Amino acid sequence: MTTRLPKKSDMDHLSDWTRPLGKKLDQALSTYLSDQHTSKTLQKAMNYSLSAGGKRIRPMLGFATAKALREDIDLMMPVACAIEMIHTYSLIHDDLPAMDDDDLRRGKATNHKVFGEACAILAGDALLTLAFSILSQASWNIQSEKKLAIISHLSQASGAKGMVAGQVLDMESENQSLNEIQLETIHRNKTAQLLSASVMCAALCFDPTPEQYAALEVYGRELGLAFQIADDILDETASTEELGKPSGSDQKKHKSTYPSVFGLETSKQKAQQCLEKALTAIDIFQENAQQLRALASYIIERKK
Amino acid sequence: MTTRLPKKSDMDHLSDWTRPLGKKLDQALSTYLSDQHTSKTLQKAMNYSLSAGGKRIRPMLGFATAKALREDIDLMMPVACAIEMIHTYSLIHDDLPAMDDDDLRRGKATNHKVFGEACAILAGDALLTLAFSILSQASWNIQSEKKLAIISHLSQASGAKGMVAGQVLDMESENQSLNEIQLETIHRNKTAQLLSASVMCAALCFDPTPEQYAALEVYGRELGLAFQIADDILDETASTEELGKPSGSDQKKHKSTYPSVFGLETSKQKAQQCLEKALTAIDIFQENAQQLRALASYIIERKK
Repeated sequence: MTTRLPKKSDMDHLSDWTRPLGKKLDQALSTYLSDQHTSKTLQKAMNYSLSAGGKRIRPMLGFATAKALREDIDLMMPVACAIEMIHTYSLIHDDLPAMDDDDLRRGKATNHKVFGEACAILAGDALLTLAFSILSQASWNIQSEKKLAIISHLSQASGAKGMVAGQVLDMESENQSLNEIQLETIHRNKTAQLLSASVMCAALCFDPTPEQYAALEVYGRELGLAFQIADDILDETASTEELGKPSGSDQKKHKSTYPSVFGLETSKQKAQQCLEKALTAIDIFQENAQQLRALASYIIERKK
Repeated sequence: MTTRLPKKSDMDHLSDWTRPLGKKLDQALSTYLSDQHTSKTLQKAMNYSLSAGGKRIRPMLGFATAKALREDIDLMMPVACAIEMIHTYSLIHDDLPAMDDDDLRRGKATNHKVFGEACAILAGDALLTLAFSILSQASWNIQSEKKLAIISHLSQASGAKGMVAGQVLDMESENQSLNEIQLETIHRNKTAQLLSASVMCAALCFDPTPEQYAALEVYGRELGLAFQIADDILDETASTEELGKPSGSDQKKHKSTYPSVFGLETSKQKAQQCLEKALTAIDIFQENAQQLRALASYIIERKK
């Protein structure tokens, strides 16, 4: 079987496909938030970061997975919203003075710069909690077992065995020189697990065959790692204006990154290798994987 | 129907009943934590606060609810662990310099004092996430619909419509004088909702009659408010040594409390009124509510 590389036309069509879905997602996120009316300040702080113009890569990966499985995208909207909330909470906490101490995110002042540290911590906590509320809601019309499998998968990918562990390992790695295995362990936990969960939790809404499930697992895993390598490269090569957040921050913190360990060219090759593995895995979906392919290419080639 | 007040013998027997259950709970918490092995530092920080010798009131309320319903306590152990994890995460975040900035909790240095702020934030995040992992685990032998009802109830009680909202409202109330309704809204959200969830989520593991469910709702609600009033009173009357955390901290922050709004005597009466409502509600369980009664009295009469 030969790997179907994304065609130029696929890439051109990607934004035509993501634009209306992004609007649907924003609408759904806004509906969930407007139901959280106990504290206006808290609601504002949650909404500020959730609607700060992120790339929405994780929800789009979920939608593209539904498309590859020829399933209804609307049915998995709660998954897309929950994962975007978890991603957003992680950014809010990440930017805190005690963590990365960043003033700028997506070209805007970070949450704690606008609402204060205490409120930013609580807004993050509330977004994380709301994600699990959404996934457990009785009105969501999929089987209970599927909801539980999704909650279980997502909580593991984002907790002490996944994203949060990655953050701690990443902090501990400052001023240390890492080998490839250590670096990959951090990247897989810090970023790749939640990206992969965007694909797998979407799949869990439906009934993929074991072969489809395994293919999506490889795709998610390789894509996740490629994303973080691309992020490391961008941190070194792009400007603060392009990124919408301070560039060169890894170097300032003496963090080991793919470019610092392997050099820029080898890092680019490694990202490319991950991309190819991801693309080969989803060959079985043929034409239905058009969006998954285009997103994978976008993730490697993006400029921010 | 006359309310059965807790007898002196019930109170004497309470610790005989809670001691072995506390050991079982510690064992279960420790098993869940030992499975989170990705980062040793993170695991240590999570374990530090989780095993810091809390009163375990929330798990015990859950166990007592199972007892009132004449059901198996072991079956609801995941609920007890999840709620204690959520309670512990809220304390870790609450103590942070950006929040209450407390150095002492349960007579020990607070989490961020030992592990640093960044790690404390992440340990809290990981405990919150782990709670939902535990409640969604496939190996827990109760119906899927019950697990989802519990996740839904608990996430709402602890999120932007519950505990987290209460924290934000509480912060905003510093240096403001509140009326009774505003004060009660804060207390119900900040403390009462999670205490009440300890009762209701335990009940959701089983099949209470609508009458039993409604009785437990009143018990949980009144007890939750009584707990926070008692906390306000203790903050004013107990010493730092007795509390294991700094006393008089509400006054220092110019927070409105029950004693500051109503005076000490009226506050005590209000707590007593809540206690009586709670006790009356559970009359229907007759002798099976012995532990629920003793816990309610303990909550009002405790010295820390």
